Amino acid sequence: MSKRLLKQWEIDEELRTLEGWKQEDGAWLVKERKLDSFREAIAFVNKVADVAEELNHHPSIVIDYRKVTLRLVTHDAGGLTELDMQSARAYDKL
Amino acid sequence: MSKRLLKQWEIDEELRTLEGWKQEDGAWLVKERKLDSFREAIAFVNKVADVAEELNHHPSIVIDYRKVTLRLVTHDAGGLTELDMQSARAYDKL
Repeated sequence: MSKRLLKQWEIDEELRTLEGWKQEDGAWLVKERKLDSFREAIAFVNKVADVAEELNHHPSIVIDYRKVTLRLVTHDAGGLTELDMQSARAYDKL
Repeated sequence: MSKRLLKQWEIDEELRTLEGWKQEDGAWLVKERKLDSFREAIAFVNKVADVAEELNHHPSIVIDYRKVTLRLVTHDAGGLTELDMQSARAYDKL
């Protein structure tokens, strides 16, 4: 998986095909998802964790009761790469 | 469980008996815990979730790779109550 930093137009193009993701502070790719209960939020986080391990790319995860926020960035590239987009697409399928 | 707001001296006293908790912004009770791996962090969060459901009191949970941050407050009391202290003690036992 290439760790080339994406250009802004590439990010904009990807964002159009993703579900509910937005760019935060010009760096992170962020998605909030509201589940039906705290239990469902935790179940979702467990599925996210499986995908993260599979891709060896770990989002920052925030759980506020039934709301889960995922934040993606490729730290060692200093921004967004195709790996973040691949991760976002995988989380959209959960 | 009483939802009376604790006085600062009561909070200070409790903090002395808790492991690694501190007060944040004069409101939240916060603890960071570093696990050995992302998998262990997720396993810890699952145990936290069980306790949260048992006590019907849910901390805000942040997972940054193998670091887990728990934040407690009693929203409907507008600050820290005995319920937060009880929760903190339960998380210390995990």
